[in-house]
Amino acid sequence: MAPMIELLLVGIGTGDPDHLTLQAIKALNSADLVMIPRKGETKADLAELRRAICADVVTNPATQLVDFDLPVRDAGNPDYRAGVDDWHDAIAGVWKDTILAGLGQDGRVALLVWGDPSLYDSTLRIAARVGRDLPLTIRVIPGITSLQALTAAHAIPLNDLGAPFTVTTGRRLRDEGWPPGVDTVAVMLDGDCSFRSLDPVGVTIWWGAYVGMKEEIALSGPLATTAATIVETRAKARADHGWIMDIYVLRRA
Amino acid sequence: MAPMIELLLVGIGTGDPDHLTLQAIKALNSADLVMIPRKGETKADLAELRRAICADVVTNPATQLVDFDLPVRDAGNPDYRAGVDDWHDAIAGVWKDTILAGLGQDGRVALLVWGDPSLYDSTLRIAARVGRDLPLTIRVIPGITSLQALTAAHAIPLNDLGAPFTVTTGRRLRDEGWPPGVDTVAVMLDGDCSFRSLDPVGVTIWWGAYVGMKEEIALSGPLATTAATIVETRAKARADHGWIMDIYVLRRA
Repeated sequence: MAPMIELLLVGIGTGDPDHLTLQAIKALNSADLVMIPRKGETKADLAELRRAICADVVTNPATQLVDFDLPVRDAGNPDYRAGVDDWHDAIAGVWKDTILAGLGQDGRVALLVWGDPSLYDSTLRIAARVGRDLPLTIRVIPGITSLQALTAAHAIPLNDLGAPFTVTTGRRLRDEGWPPGVDTVAVMLDGDCSFRSLDPVGVTIWWGAYVGMKEEIALSGPLATTAATIVETRAKARADHGWIMDIYVLRRA
Repeated sequence: MAPMIELLLVGIGTGDPDHLTLQAIKALNSADLVMIPRKGETKADLAELRRAICADVVTNPATQLVDFDLPVRDAGNPDYRAGVDDWHDAIAGVWKDTILAGLGQDGRVALLVWGDPSLYDSTLRIAARVGRDLPLTIRVIPGITSLQALTAAHAIPLNDLGAPFTVTTGRRLRDEGWPPGVDTVAVMLDGDCSFRSLDPVGVTIWWGAYVGMKEEIALSGPLATTAATIVETRAKARADHGWIMDIYVLRRA
C-alpha cells in the first residue's frame, strides 16, 4: 500500500477534562504521534490543558507526544482575511514539518482541538492545506462545544419548539444587527459585548464565560437589565484571569 | 435541609456508546436512580441502547435502573402544537410517578438523552413541567449532537470563516425556503427530503443518516446531481432498517 498519514482531529470540549468522550480517548491512544502547540496560546490558563489531558488519558506507551511552535499571526496586516490566510499557511507548514520529522509519510497523528473541529475553528482549513503536500486522510472526533457548555450551564434548550436559530459572531451582530428570520441567536467570538448594540426590548440573554471550566460564570435575564451586569462582570473576570472566552444566546419574545 | 430532587439530563451522543463523555459516565454513576423508557420508541434499533450504555458504564451498585412506560403521542390531534403539549404533560406525569416511587422527594435521578438536551429535544420542557409539582433542580450534561456527528462524518466545518449559519427543520425549509441572511443551513427533523424544494443551483449538500452509528451513511456533492441519489439511498436504508434518522448541511457559493 502507498504510504498514508491519518490525521485525527480530536475535539476535547471546553476545558473540563471530563468533556472528553470515550472515542476521543481511544483516538488519542491509537495515535503514533500527538502534536501539542507550545507557544502562541494567549490564554495562559489553557496552555497546559492539552498536555494535562494527554497525561491523564494517554496510556499507550507507543504514543509519542511532540511539541511544536505555533506561529504568531501578524495582527498588523490591514487585510484581516489575508492575514488569517497567511497565518494558516504558516501553521500548515509547521504541522507538515512536525509530521515528517516525527512520523515520516506513514502513520497516525492526532491534534487536540478545543471544542469541536466543526464550529468556528480553523483546524480543518489548516489540515486541508497540509493535505496538498502530504498523502493525508482526515478523521474528525467530535467534541463538546462552548455552545453546548453554555446551554448546559443555564439548563436551557437552544431552539424554541420546532423553531430555527442562527449562530453568528460578535462582529456580525454589531455590524448587521439581529439576524433576519429567527428569534434565537447564539453569538460566538465576541470580544466586545456586541449585545449592547441591540434594542433590548423583549430580549432575554443567557451569557457565560469559561463555560464548562471550574471558573465558569453564568448570568441571564432581560437584556435591558442584565447587559450592564454582564459588561462589568466580564471586565472584572478578564482582569482577574488575564484572559476571557465568553458566549451567549439571545432570544426575543 | 428541605428535600430536593436533582434531575440529571445526560446527553449520550448519537448511538455510538463511545460518544459518552467522562462527565456523563460520572453523572450516571452518581445517580440513585436512572429512568429508562420502556415503550414508545419507534426506532427499534435504539430501544436497547440506553440499557446497553448503562450496562457498560454504570458500576456503582447503589445506582438503580427503573423502567417506565413512555406515553404515546396522539397523532390524531389536528392541532399539532396542542398534541405535543398534551403528550409532554403525560410524559411529565409518568416521570413524576416514577421519581416518587423510586426516590421519594430526595435524591438524584438521571435520564439519558439522545444527542444533547439543548438541540431539538423536549426533555428540558418536560422537566420544567415536573418542576411545577416536585422540588426539582435540573443539571444538564452536554452530549455529542447529530449535527456534530454529521460534520465529523464529512470532516467539514459547519461555518465558513467568520460567517453565520442557521439551524432549522425540514418543515421550515419546505414552507419558508432558504433562510434569509445565511449561506449555510443545517436541517434537522426532516422526514421528507425537503432539500428537493430548493433551487439547487450553486448549492452543495452534505447528508448523513444514522450518523455516529455503525450503520452510518454519508453522501455529499452538488445538490443538483446528488439529491436523487440521497432520496433513493434514504428510501432503501429506511426499508432495510425499519427506521431512519437523517440530517444535512447545505451551503451555497
